[in-house]
Amino acid sequence: MPSFKITIAYDGSRFVGWQRQINGPSVQGLIEEALRELDEHEVPVAGAGRTDAGVHAFGQVASFALRRVIAADALRRALNSRLPDEVRVVSAEEVAASFHARFAVSRKTYRYRIWNADVLNPFERQYAWHVRASLAIDAMEAAARVLEGPHDFAAFQAADGTQRTTEREIFTSRLFARSDEPGAALTPSARLITYEISGSGFLRHMVRAIAGSLVEIGAGRHGVEWLSGVLEGRDRTRAGPTAPAHGLFLVRVDYANGGTPDGSLQTAD
Amino acid sequence: MPSFKITIAYDGSRFVGWQRQINGPSVQGLIEEALRELDEHEVPVAGAGRTDAGVHAFGQVASFALRRVIAADALRRALNSRLPDEVRVVSAEEVAASFHARFAVSRKTYRYRIWNADVLNPFERQYAWHVRASLAIDAMEAAARVLEGPHDFAAFQAADGTQRTTEREIFTSRLFARSDEPGAALTPSARLITYEISGSGFLRHMVRAIAGSLVEIGAGRHGVEWLSGVLEGRDRTRAGPTAPAHGLFLVRVDYANGGTPDGSLQTAD
Repeated sequence: MPSFKITIAYDGSRFVGWQRQINGPSVQGLIEEALRELDEHEVPVAGAGRTDAGVHAFGQVASFALRRVIAADALRRALNSRLPDEVRVVSAEEVAASFHARFAVSRKTYRYRIWNADVLNPFERQYAWHVRASLAIDAMEAAARVLEGPHDFAAFQAADGTQRTTEREIFTSRLFARSDEPGAALTPSARLITYEISGSGFLRHMVRAIAGSLVEIGAGRHGVEWLSGVLEGRDRTRAGPTAPAHGLFLVRVDYANGGTPDGSLQTAD
Repeated sequence: MPSFKITIAYDGSRFVGWQRQINGPSVQGLIEEALRELDEHEVPVAGAGRTDAGVHAFGQVASFALRRVIAADALRRALNSRLPDEVRVVSAEEVAASFHARFAVSRKTYRYRIWNADVLNPFERQYAWHVRASLAIDAMEAAARVLEGPHDFAAFQAADGTQRTTEREIFTSRLFARSDEPGAALTPSARLITYEISGSGFLRHMVRAIAGSLVEIGAGRHGVEWLSGVLEGRDRTRAGPTAPAHGLFLVRVDYANGGTPDGSLQTAD
């Protein structure tokens, strides 16, 4: 039984999320259906982490074992021919049977995109949060840096979060603003703001709660020091609102130890 | 009766095109419906040019006259509140009654986008032509330059083209390739190729026929000199295939003489 690791890009707009659910199409469900057809058996697929309804991915990672022998590249093509073009297997590789996409994640990277202009860019309507208020980029950038390092992120987890531990290490937390996007050329002062965060793991809704808090600071409703206070206070009710799902992208997942179990289990947003 | 010029961005994916038709929703139709509600009269809207089904726009221009008096910015907001978010009025300005969006166009700019990689980027599936073959960018760039200047573009018009004259002046015809797009990071050798062409006017399907011909050259099926031969031959059957509509964007429209009639009428793709 060969084992495989696949990297998947998907437009999450019309999905209930990564995880199979009864209330609508999921990315995991589509991949499992394609694999069942291919392998003529039920094939459970493990994802590096769940993404919520409407959240997108450039580089989600999943693993599974097949009964049939197939070259990794033929597997990638066979999957893509059975999936809608909103979901693409970008790469596939054969891995050790002990590889599991959720174990031994060493780093996950997310991006949150904000279309900051009076008028929405229609091409960003499903891929960025439209914020009309003029945002102070310098303050948002300074606040983003505050989150780097090991911290207890209890203040930024979902209201119903049930993680054993809320400590995570953030390696980088950076903000970029660009005015040269095609859609921006005709709208004076339009900007695409991209927030990128990379860390050991993430709590449910953590990136979206951070993005919502950074916009509070950018809009001038709070200062940079407020974010430090929220982080230290570990109280979800003090952070900013959770930013909408459709601005969030899972960019990449990196593994330590070749992705084989080392005892740590990361469950992440 | 105040007259207005509006600039419109739209995602053409689910429209039958710019022009009102009986077989489905059009951008012109949606704007005319919104204006009828606003002005309580039928308001005929003139566009700078038709775009075909699936073609997008960052900067289509339209003009019309209203019975009611309204500030341009209030008009923009009122229209956007009545339009689906796939269509956005980016700007509005009051103009002389003699302004007509189709007359006195001095320059139109189009962009054609190609996703050049083995695997489709799911976020480009409605905004770029997916070409798997490895493309020779240098040859395509050299061929693009051949089109600059005044030429008879009969070889690049729609098979059913009925223009009085097929002579147009191309001001710039340039090709750019980028490998740093977000979706490209995980796919080795993936590229977004953008072809931008700016000219006095365009025949129906002209940009798409040129894009199809440039890909023929990039894929090595023809040399650069073939394009010169096709242009001189003025025979549509010799050019490359018409590239799909969903890769095409009307980027901007510029006007001479403040857009008032000067006797010239440009009808364009």
